[in-house]
Amino acid sequence: MAQGGHPFEQALDKNPANHVALTPLHFLARAGEVYPDKVALVHGALRRGWGETYARCRRLASALARRGIGVGDTVAVLAANTPPMYELHFGVPMAGAVLNTINVRLDPRTIAFILEHGGAKLLFTDREFAPAVAKALQLLPAGGITVVDLDDPEYRGAGERLGEIEYEDFLLTGDPAFAWQPPADEWQAIGLNYTSGTTGNPKGVVIHHRGAYLNAMGNVVASAMSGASVYLWTLPMFHCNGWCFPWTLALIAGTNVCLRRVETAPIFNAIRAHRVTHFCGAPVVLNMLINAPERERALIDHPVEAMTGGAAPPAPVIARMEQMGVTVTHLYGLTETYGPSVACAWHDEWDALPLEQRAALKSRIGVRKANMEQGTVLDPQTLREVPRDGATIGEIVFRGNTVMKGYLKNPAATAEAFAGGWFHSGDLGVIHPDGYIQVKDRAKDIVISGGENIATLEVEEALYRHAAVLEAAVVARPDAKWGETPCAFVTLKDGAAATEADILAFCREHLAGFKVPKTVVFGPLPKTATGKIQKFVLRDRAKQL
Amino acid sequence: MAQGGHPFEQALDKNPANHVALTPLHFLARAGEVYPDKVALVHGALRRGWGETYARCRRLASALARRGIGVGDTVAVLAANTPPMYELHFGVPMAGAVLNTINVRLDPRTIAFILEHGGAKLLFTDREFAPAVAKALQLLPAGGITVVDLDDPEYRGAGERLGEIEYEDFLLTGDPAFAWQPPADEWQAIGLNYTSGTTGNPKGVVIHHRGAYLNAMGNVVASAMSGASVYLWTLPMFHCNGWCFPWTLALIAGTNVCLRRVETAPIFNAIRAHRVTHFCGAPVVLNMLINAPERERALIDHPVEAMTGGAAPPAPVIARMEQMGVTVTHLYGLTETYGPSVACAWHDEWDALPLEQRAALKSRIGVRKANMEQGTVLDPQTLREVPRDGATIGEIVFRGNTVMKGYLKNPAATAEAFAGGWFHSGDLGVIHPDGYIQVKDRAKDIVISGGENIATLEVEEALYRHAAVLEAAVVARPDAKWGETPCAFVTLKDGAAATEADILAFCREHLAGFKVPKTVVFGPLPKTATGKIQKFVLRDRAKQL
Repeated sequence: MAQGGHPFEQALDKNPANHVALTPLHFLARAGEVYPDKVALVHGALRRGWGETYARCRRLASALARRGIGVGDTVAVLAANTPPMYELHFGVPMAGAVLNTINVRLDPRTIAFILEHGGAKLLFTDREFAPAVAKALQLLPAGGITVVDLDDPEYRGAGERLGEIEYEDFLLTGDPAFAWQPPADEWQAIGLNYTSGTTGNPKGVVIHHRGAYLNAMGNVVASAMSGASVYLWTLPMFHCNGWCFPWTLALIAGTNVCLRRVETAPIFNAIRAHRVTHFCGAPVVLNMLINAPERERALIDHPVEAMTGGAAPPAPVIARMEQMGVTVTHLYGLTETYGPSVACAWHDEWDALPLEQRAALKSRIGVRKANMEQGTVLDPQTLREVPRDGATIGEIVFRGNTVMKGYLKNPAATAEAFAGGWFHSGDLGVIHPDGYIQVKDRAKDIVISGGENIATLEVEEALYRHAAVLEAAVVARPDAKWGETPCAFVTLKDGAAATEADILAFCREHLAGFKVPKTVVFGPLPKTATGKIQKFVLRDRAKQL
Repeated sequence: MAQGGHPFEQALDKNPANHVALTPLHFLARAGEVYPDKVALVHGALRRGWGETYARCRRLASALARRGIGVGDTVAVLAANTPPMYELHFGVPMAGAVLNTINVRLDPRTIAFILEHGGAKLLFTDREFAPAVAKALQLLPAGGITVVDLDDPEYRGAGERLGEIEYEDFLLTGDPAFAWQPPADEWQAIGLNYTSGTTGNPKGVVIHHRGAYLNAMGNVVASAMSGASVYLWTLPMFHCNGWCFPWTLALIAGTNVCLRRVETAPIFNAIRAHRVTHFCGAPVVLNMLINAPERERALIDHPVEAMTGGAAPPAPVIARMEQMGVTVTHLYGLTETYGPSVACAWHDEWDALPLEQRAALKSRIGVRKANMEQGTVLDPQTLREVPRDGATIGEIVFRGNTVMKGYLKNPAATAEAFAGGWFHSGDLGVIHPDGYIQVKDRAKDIVISGGENIATLEVEEALYRHAAVLEAAVVARPDAKWGETPCAFVTLKDGAAATEADILAFCREHLAGFKVPKTVVFGPLPKTATGKIQKFVLRDRAKQL
């Protein structure tokens, strides 16, 4: 500390007793020491306590350290929501390293890009995803990455082991009493999450220990969670580290119920069997649940809170979820903001309103969570807040401690994201007179399908590679099941011929399955005088298909 | 940020969008904007919303700024638990200044010492405490401190106005739209709280915005609080800033129920009328409640959580509180740790145990809260943790972000408190095999009477000033109502004479009322070979009186 001019800055410096780097890792140490026998993880027939979980995470950190993994190193993972995936959220940073969770639905080329760009030294990979991962590894220099297989007893499908050692054997090489060290600086990176962004190559969002700690605390405040909370893992942990809930569950010493696959029967069974109190997921998950067979949904007899983001939950979904005894909260955020940073904070007096009005209120993303110091809508030109009239559109922006450090090895994109001293979401919205924000459009042309972000530019680039395609533009088409699907508008070259089936087959070769357009429309594209494709016209057309 | 050797430290610096100084002041801004009409404060017939409370705090900050109060300045207050006392916890730091809450029971000389040592430029003082404050001001240079009176409509007793302006008029000199600035650095001081410590002159504990933010969050986690929580102000806000609960209530936008005076009928009435969910207080408060007339306690029909510290709540107290529907949680902390930092975290399976066993478990202070990174018992010589055997005594120590900056203008005491890189509580304890800490003795010879710390040395110094006193030693005597009371052992000079009544009358002239011994025992003092008084012998005698 500088010695300032007044007594409150003199001889009152930071020291090891009064200043410790904020990190969510201490939460696990506390849960392990205070609640060793309380169930931390449920997975199939497995019940594992916080004490054993803490010991296994120390083993993991120790095993990583013995392989030379430390500060500044990247450890990647492709996994379903299993106990090892949970443990990696602690064990990797306890070794000082950065956890890079990779979307399991990505295509081999993108996986390879991420592994190379992120500099992964070690990769944990679930047997289920071996086909894509094997191809990705073939695209990289041989031997550059140590591979550890996750061979989950709850997974009985296809998929070979790719690595030299299985996770449980890897743990045995570590010391359960390992004296892990917290980060020396809370600004140290804890996670690396790639986002599709607006361009073909994904960008690596770097988050730090300080933000992970604060968002984990903020989740408790926003969702009124406690040690009695039971959290069901419907949201992939590879999505913004499961919105920081892995760390929140350790903070409260609650119970994690793992789930390999989002299917209605296992979800309802878990909710009933373990008396789940909270789960998160894209609106497509809620949609699946309300359309499940009556027999599956009949028996929920305790309150459940569902948190959803990515698109506004429609009134019928809210109504049917409520009939099942599930309260729906609408959230909004980005990978760059550690997941949701805005929530539609509820007012008790709204409970008495008719469904349509409640749904209209819930369609708004709401207000900043307590851990995000500022979140508002600015005029993009003046960077002043737009009038709170529910009509004036501006860009949703943030300032706070749960905003990323920046994009890895991408100073240009980082500078653009932080232009003018605000984090720019790229999403457009309005502010209502009560201060609640509503999303109106996406500046970045992202299609959100089943909770997955799809950059239209990437799909367009694939289309452009087809020999018969002259021009292509992709927009979101509203979809009852997926929220949105990519809809391609294509102009063929003179004399060339291609059917919708040809185009789709070509896309399937070059894109992850979920990025392949669901619809292809042939014809000339509407353009501005300067030749720019008018996507807003195409969006209207897509709505009417 | 230094540019380190790996990509996670390159071009990923702090900027205004991703790094904001932690401060609880943002909590009030959020509560005011999101829940303007939700009741923030109840006081008598007054109901005031979060919107108006935020506006009044901005007025207050603005009025202070217009009087030249800013960063590095001290603003002192002597007040009961009223709305202005709550607002000062926000308005003063929103002006950049440091809030110095003063114990209203102190004697004029100590008040004067604190005002001078703390450098107060402005003093808010409740009319009830005018007699002592007027005398204190007479001990200080005239005109050095601007005095603002708090003339609470709920107070109808004696006491003149001392200052030039009343609080409500002072507020009118400020702007409700004042553009307050958060601190530039979260290490900036937010509060100054004097503790009696071990020597006659109190020490000024300096706490910062970072710690206030983190403890406010930690309270939500430890006490499972939410927006539905209603908090009754039985604990003085001048005690460690009410254990940071003023800031916690803004964080959750809960409701504060003010209380000028700790009396049973108003407490039970408030609990019923406002459906209070949480309150804090010394064991003497719980003792009062269980001894209240049956008629007052009959009608509590909702769950209430009482948090108590300073001494272990005895089994009969726990039992009778539970019969009234109030759960008791035992906490431990010091002014230096922002109030309680250790709590007897409960395990569900303990609910089924017989009362005596539950009381034995609750008599332990427990484990560190989630916001305190380390809290344990060390061997004072080796600074190693004592064995977890429930028997080996060591000193209770802390490391974490809710440990004070240090003592104001007292580098020697600060260095002593932080010796070896730990904060030393001065209290002795043991660790049980399950990691729970139990207090065994007080290294600092503090008497805790009705929740107030009394330094025995200060009382001894007063006794020594009596002309007839040769030697004096003061120890704690267990007391059913107050927990402990000061018990004086006195040896008179040869040929001198004094009765117990003489001694007590003399003490009342020189000490705050609560510090005056309840018992005086005459006779020779037991000593070691080197002439040191054996206080442990006296403590045993005091117990048998």
